[in-house]
Amino acid sequence: MVAAAARLSNPHPLDDLSPSEISQAAEYIREAYPNAHINFRVITLSEPPKAVLEPYLRTERSGFKSSAPAKPARMAYVQYYVNTPQDFREVHVDLDKRELLNKNVLKGVHSFSVSSDMEKIEKACIESPEVKEVIDELLLPEGSTVVAETWTYATDGENDMKNKIVMCYMYMRPGSHLDTNYYAYPLDFCVEMSGDGKVLNIIALPLGIDGKMKPAKGNLKPFDRKKIHTGSEYHPDIQTEKRTTVTPYNVVQPQGPSFRTQGQLLTWEKWRLRVGFNYREGMVLHDVSYDGRQLFYRLSLAEMFVPYGDSRSPYPRKAAFDLGNDGAGVNANNLKLGCDCLGHIKYFDGYHHTTSGDPIKLPNVICCHEQDDGILWKHMNTRTKNPVTTRSRVLVLQSIITVTNYEYIFAFYLNQAAEISYEVRATGILSTVPTGPSNAAQPYGTVVAPGVLAPYHQHLFCLRIDTALDGPRNSFATEETYPLPLGCPSGRNAKGVGYTTRQQFVEHEAALDVDIGAGRVFKVINEGVTNPVNGGPVGFKIVPHYSQMLLAHPTSHHAVRSEFAAHPFWVTRYADGERHPAGQHTMQSERGSGIATWLRNRPKKLGVRNEDIVVWHTFGATHNPRIEEWPVMPVEKMMVTLKPVNFFSRNPAVDVPISNQEQNQSVLVEDSRDGRCYKSKL
Amino acid sequence: MVAAAARLSNPHPLDDLSPSEISQAAEYIREAYPNAHINFRVITLSEPPKAVLEPYLRTERSGFKSSAPAKPARMAYVQYYVNTPQDFREVHVDLDKRELLNKNVLKGVHSFSVSSDMEKIEKACIESPEVKEVIDELLLPEGSTVVAETWTYATDGENDMKNKIVMCYMYMRPGSHLDTNYYAYPLDFCVEMSGDGKVLNIIALPLGIDGKMKPAKGNLKPFDRKKIHTGSEYHPDIQTEKRTTVTPYNVVQPQGPSFRTQGQLLTWEKWRLRVGFNYREGMVLHDVSYDGRQLFYRLSLAEMFVPYGDSRSPYPRKAAFDLGNDGAGVNANNLKLGCDCLGHIKYFDGYHHTTSGDPIKLPNVICCHEQDDGILWKHMNTRTKNPVTTRSRVLVLQSIITVTNYEYIFAFYLNQAAEISYEVRATGILSTVPTGPSNAAQPYGTVVAPGVLAPYHQHLFCLRIDTALDGPRNSFATEETYPLPLGCPSGRNAKGVGYTTRQQFVEHEAALDVDIGAGRVFKVINEGVTNPVNGGPVGFKIVPHYSQMLLAHPTSHHAVRSEFAAHPFWVTRYADGERHPAGQHTMQSERGSGIATWLRNRPKKLGVRNEDIVVWHTFGATHNPRIEEWPVMPVEKMMVTLKPVNFFSRNPAVDVPISNQEQNQSVLVEDSRDGRCYKSKL
Repeated sequence: MVAAAARLSNPHPLDDLSPSEISQAAEYIREAYPNAHINFRVITLSEPPKAVLEPYLRTERSGFKSSAPAKPARMAYVQYYVNTPQDFREVHVDLDKRELLNKNVLKGVHSFSVSSDMEKIEKACIESPEVKEVIDELLLPEGSTVVAETWTYATDGENDMKNKIVMCYMYMRPGSHLDTNYYAYPLDFCVEMSGDGKVLNIIALPLGIDGKMKPAKGNLKPFDRKKIHTGSEYHPDIQTEKRTTVTPYNVVQPQGPSFRTQGQLLTWEKWRLRVGFNYREGMVLHDVSYDGRQLFYRLSLAEMFVPYGDSRSPYPRKAAFDLGNDGAGVNANNLKLGCDCLGHIKYFDGYHHTTSGDPIKLPNVICCHEQDDGILWKHMNTRTKNPVTTRSRVLVLQSIITVTNYEYIFAFYLNQAAEISYEVRATGILSTVPTGPSNAAQPYGTVVAPGVLAPYHQHLFCLRIDTALDGPRNSFATEETYPLPLGCPSGRNAKGVGYTTRQQFVEHEAALDVDIGAGRVFKVINEGVTNPVNGGPVGFKIVPHYSQMLLAHPTSHHAVRSEFAAHPFWVTRYADGERHPAGQHTMQSERGSGIATWLRNRPKKLGVRNEDIVVWHTFGATHNPRIEEWPVMPVEKMMVTLKPVNFFSRNPAVDVPISNQEQNQSVLVEDSRDGRCYKSKL
Repeated sequence: MVAAAARLSNPHPLDDLSPSEISQAAEYIREAYPNAHINFRVITLSEPPKAVLEPYLRTERSGFKSSAPAKPARMAYVQYYVNTPQDFREVHVDLDKRELLNKNVLKGVHSFSVSSDMEKIEKACIESPEVKEVIDELLLPEGSTVVAETWTYATDGENDMKNKIVMCYMYMRPGSHLDTNYYAYPLDFCVEMSGDGKVLNIIALPLGIDGKMKPAKGNLKPFDRKKIHTGSEYHPDIQTEKRTTVTPYNVVQPQGPSFRTQGQLLTWEKWRLRVGFNYREGMVLHDVSYDGRQLFYRLSLAEMFVPYGDSRSPYPRKAAFDLGNDGAGVNANNLKLGCDCLGHIKYFDGYHHTTSGDPIKLPNVICCHEQDDGILWKHMNTRTKNPVTTRSRVLVLQSIITVTNYEYIFAFYLNQAAEISYEVRATGILSTVPTGPSNAAQPYGTVVAPGVLAPYHQHLFCLRIDTALDGPRNSFATEETYPLPLGCPSGRNAKGVGYTTRQQFVEHEAALDVDIGAGRVFKVINEGVTNPVNGGPVGFKIVPHYSQMLLAHPTSHHAVRSEFAAHPFWVTRYADGERHPAGQHTMQSERGSGIATWLRNRPKKLGVRNEDIVVWHTFGATHNPRIEEWPVMPVEKMMVTLKPVNFFSRNPAVDVPISNQEQNQSVLVEDSRDGRCYKSKL
């Protein structure tokens, strides 16, 4: 909790809410309900409507040369319970005018998951006499501790979604070290809890191929002590093998980094953007431009879905919306110097709040630093033998979240050639379930330790690309490369080697698929701006991360709740309220609130040519675990890249200085003599 | 040229030929032809047959504990002309016994391209009176120079392949600076030269959509001086825009690097391998093991093909086998400290020879250094809030080649989790042709400067993976992930969310395709070795670079010459002679010498289960140029990764030390005040 400081005198319209603004918003709402207990779920910046903000940003980028439009109002968006979770509401708060606007009762939806609630439920689960009774029957080893791990409930049709349900999966932590990896000891039961902490069901987990739900009572065997093993630890206190071969590696920037920040404004190598942060999406990039030309209005991870493919009950309940249910912002790690980044690091803080509405600082939720990325471009004229080489400097904006067992490392990489990449690295610990000694459950996952199954699952991310190439009106196109027919036309392909491209604009909102055989490329284009050299329209291409889409049956709860996961590309007309492609409220959602529903429900098909459009890219991994991902997972990398295509007049990085030893200070290493490598005397 | 030093007393069987061995091989051959002039094309190590070398390496890895098998003979493989190119021969030279073995006359094939030959042809072209006459008609600006750039001749059916043909494409270099980018001024004609430097044809290049071959004489217009422009330069002397915003970035390893080398033997972080180099493939990795377990017998780029998609004559002749025709080894750059790598660098030299058989040192053809690659794995226990983070250190082995206009950066990346990646970065300058002012030729390429077309083309690489997972006998399998049918079997998928995998072994030599929708994974497996934890067979998966395959018509010369380019995966039974998947001799090849032909010509289908197998992965880019790739191309990256799948018993990098500030020495940066970022006082 931080003391409510004086409000910033002149915040930028895209500045996150300050601690004092959070306090103010809470205060105004409490004032409106003098006799009620207000439980705050969300207090976040309500970004100004695009129709208001876009002209403001345009004038700002021009240095306010034209008369500045009115500065958009500072607004908070708040979700809260009045007395009980059954009375769930939302409101917008005008912080200057102290006004509550667009009050709305949220019916039939649940709040996202607040960690203090989950901690209470874990405690209630562990302390419940019925659960204790089941634990006692397991005859666990002396000195071990039972851990209840809460999971949001993925709708499976067995419980009315009107009731908030939380699943507790149960693990054993042997011994006394608190960082012992309890995922190595999944117990044979789980507990279905109500949202207010009552035990509803204690369920025996399936140990074989059969998937019928059974009560724990009478169906559990005592804990098999032969399962106790070494080799599943990752914490350095307990994991005993240690490499000693890695020598230190430091990054030194004697003149400091090349980037500059002022509050949330970041400039680096012709890039200019605002780094935002909110409880749900975490890191967001606003108003991204390069060399004075506008590229993107907003870039963000819009949603992610992690459905498990184990069809045995109760596992269809395991399917997490890590943004909508849990929040990438509130689960962001406090990044540490020398651990999460290397070199010269600038950290950005975030702010959140307690359920009482008091601001909380989330320190170091985003780190910003430069990296060397090898060669950017090189050419050696073979006649003069003069090599000309530039090295690629990239700017990394990184945020890491922990969602129970998993870590996700999200990073934007900006380079000097006006390319921007979004990378996800999945790491952390596999979610585990118990399995019988016969390994009979192997069709559903990988056995990673004695009696421990890491089930198959998918990670499906959706990157929201709110484009603004040279202005808000853009188009979306596919381009395919296809062979010319033999000899056609008029004998021009007599040798059969010719090929050409076919560009097709997407006319209306749509979902699109990849096609590698056709060499399909996805482009955002501004049809109104012409490349001065070759006369074509300016654009960017989106190089996808090729991924298998959602495997769950189209009629399943998983599929209807995660509409974005059916196709790798979607293009929609911009609308202020459409930011979350599985719907605004994902917690125990049923169907029909995602991107496909938006499109289906339009009164008429909306055109997307020369319009304000948003492109959504779904990508991820079908994660059938390898044992090499146990007990902790080496990062699995996924990357999407946006590259200019005939947007500039030439390579925008042609002006990057040539690399030389005077600047780089590299060190020559000679062959080993005594078994180590030497610095050369040179 | 280097003085022939004393022969190494005890070379390893995989050591490249030393300068003295090159001299010896040449000497023995000259002795055999006392009255002839010998023109040496290739003198390279003849790697011992696998049947001999494999047992030797196995014993060596075990520290020669069992009685060592006989050390394989040191052999050179030599290609040479006797007096004239019409008498082209090959021979193996036993360097110990001074014996010439397997003498063979090479009929119907041509030598690869030797740069001194090409330089002579360029000179002959430029100095020919007929060519001078054509140049004179162009009325080029005063002070400009004409450059003839040789291209190997891609068979197009118009010339008998028995005659060696070289194409000279003609460019103008304006002004006096020798590094002026002449690709910005392609002239409107090209010259067809004979292998011995005679002008055969002077051809007018097409400027419009029509592609009929026309003689230059009478069909050329004077050079249009309006084409002279700025903006196409990359050399720092001439390119006038210069960024001044990039601050220096140094990598410091106070205790030196973590790797060790002794000659060609390299050890690093449980990896052990031999770094080889030859004139054709360039960098090769031999006998790769991790933690004492054998992984790969040999890893190499086996071929690459760059066919152009412009179907207008004479452009079907533009299609380069950059390994088979030009050689990745002989075209490898002399890498420079502070330019091509950053940090603590070990360089490996290569050796080649003159056409007289004298050894030549190719200095610094491979660089070896470590990089930080961000986070390797992380987990924060949400109960204790203790984050545990390791950083990923990778070892990079890099070699860069210049093939006329293009640069290719080839690199193997080894990481601490036993993963190995192969990356290609394409950079350099686009090959250009002239185009008319109407931009009428745009179906064939991208206009990048006035009158300059960068034609569409493909880059297709073939990575040869000679597997040896826990021994020479391996299998190849695909694994697909598919949804369980609704409700099947016996009601186990009632919720429709279940999915599972299907593994299928490849039984016989075959080509295979990718299938993203099916989640198809490609695995090498040792069926004879069982994972101690989960009982499955040990393996590695190959994560492909998804690419469009060859676009040329299957009956075209391009297609029949580059058989490997038709499918992304091939699996074959190992054979000593099968190393080049477009055939041993690609220069003006006609058809039927590549990987598909090997398979077609076997007396019977060969099984590949539990056999000594080789996997070939074809990948690349359909390169339809962006103007942002002009005048020099920001790197286009392609990456293939090999990852263990149930090969180890757990994450092999779980023992990597935890990252901390004491080792990493990172620096906290604060917000700008005077417009720069500060080091914090902290």
